[in-house]
Amino acid sequence: MEERAAQPVWDYLQSMEACIVAFDDFTDIDVFFLWDLLNRVREPGCRVRLLGDSDKHVSSTGIEIPMHGHISESAECDVVLFASGMGTRRKRTDATFLSAFRLDPKRQLIGSMCSGALLLAALGLLEGKSATTYPTVRELLASTGVRVVEKPFVREGNVATAAGCLAAQYLAGWVIEEKFGAAKREEVLRSIMPVGEGLYFSDAEQVARAYATSTP
Amino acid sequence: MEERAAQPVWDYLQSMEACIVAFDDFTDIDVFFLWDLLNRVREPGCRVRLLGDSDKHVSSTGIEIPMHGHISESAECDVVLFASGMGTRRKRTDATFLSAFRLDPKRQLIGSMCSGALLLAALGLLEGKSATTYPTVRELLASTGVRVVEKPFVREGNVATAAGCLAAQYLAGWVIEEKFGAAKREEVLRSIMPVGEGLYFSDAEQVARAYATSTP
Repeated sequence: MEERAAQPVWDYLQSMEACIVAFDDFTDIDVFFLWDLLNRVREPGCRVRLLGDSDKHVSSTGIEIPMHGHISESAECDVVLFASGMGTRRKRTDATFLSAFRLDPKRQLIGSMCSGALLLAALGLLEGKSATTYPTVRELLASTGVRVVEKPFVREGNVATAAGCLAAQYLAGWVIEEKFGAAKREEVLRSIMPVGEGLYFSDAEQVARAYATSTP
Repeated sequence: MEERAAQPVWDYLQSMEACIVAFDDFTDIDVFFLWDLLNRVREPGCRVRLLGDSDKHVSSTGIEIPMHGHISESAECDVVLFASGMGTRRKRTDATFLSAFRLDPKRQLIGSMCSGALLLAALGLLEGKSATTYPTVRELLASTGVRVVEKPFVREGNVATAAGCLAAQYLAGWVIEEKFGAAKREEVLRSIMPVGEGLYFSDAEQVARAYATSTP
């Protein structure tokens, strides 16, 4: 009893410090789908941030988004997810960008959407591993020595790749289940299903939790 | 032959001026999923814009997005789609906001995601019609006299409602098929499917078109 009382209160909470790594010329949906899903966890110890190497980044369709911090802060995150987009072709050979990361799959969950796998490869995180990526960059990823497989989600220990925008559900689902359990994963993923096809009017009370202060 | 030559060149192109109506406290994915899908059409006469009643709007998760124009410009659009989010609860009784719209289902395709149906109802566009909405606002929408049905997508002529975030595929798909045909709809929707589950490495060349200048 005394020992428990001595522990700081945050030890009792599930927590997750997650980041999504963005850059100029990112694919909108591959940032915002992950962002939206992870924000539905709504647990007190859960924080999600967009990290870049600039204050703002512009998507491939021209939407300018403010970042929450610098990519070097990814070292302190529990979860680091790389976005996709044409920008990955430049960033994978950008030594300044790459050297800002201090990632460790032993203590972090690390993942990518679509061509974000190119950045995992550039950081040496896919050596000797299988991975998936978007069809248009299959050959480029394979040229780095990665075994590219035609699957929506490939997990190798604490490193995972997802491909095809809707596969964000697998990537975010993996992270949420690892950190908060299968029930939370199910709750979050149900909240975005089409009505009548996985989400029902009778789910109103349960899915309202995914929005906490704001409902859709 | 002479008559054809006299027509302006843009009569020969498929075109679409589309807008997504946003506001403060919008649900991120319900704006960005539609935005991303409509931007994949990549036809010369296709333009998509975010319209609001302010220069910028902040999502329910705190992302600040610049708008491309004012909601009053929706009158000149071929397609007007309303986003969702807690903001709809305020906007549905905001007389200044509502009076800025001059919409006409006879010449426009008009639609909504999730609680965006509350705005269609407030604008009188769902009178005597069936519609769908997010589970958490079913009762509120029904209280306006709308017949609320548990379906992902409900189309009544040129007015359509979709509910559950992934149902954006039905709403955007409807718009794309109406304006550019079934093949374009299929091309766009395939480009976001999970790899190995609807999208395959052999689709690389076809889906690359959805990204035109930038690939994912």
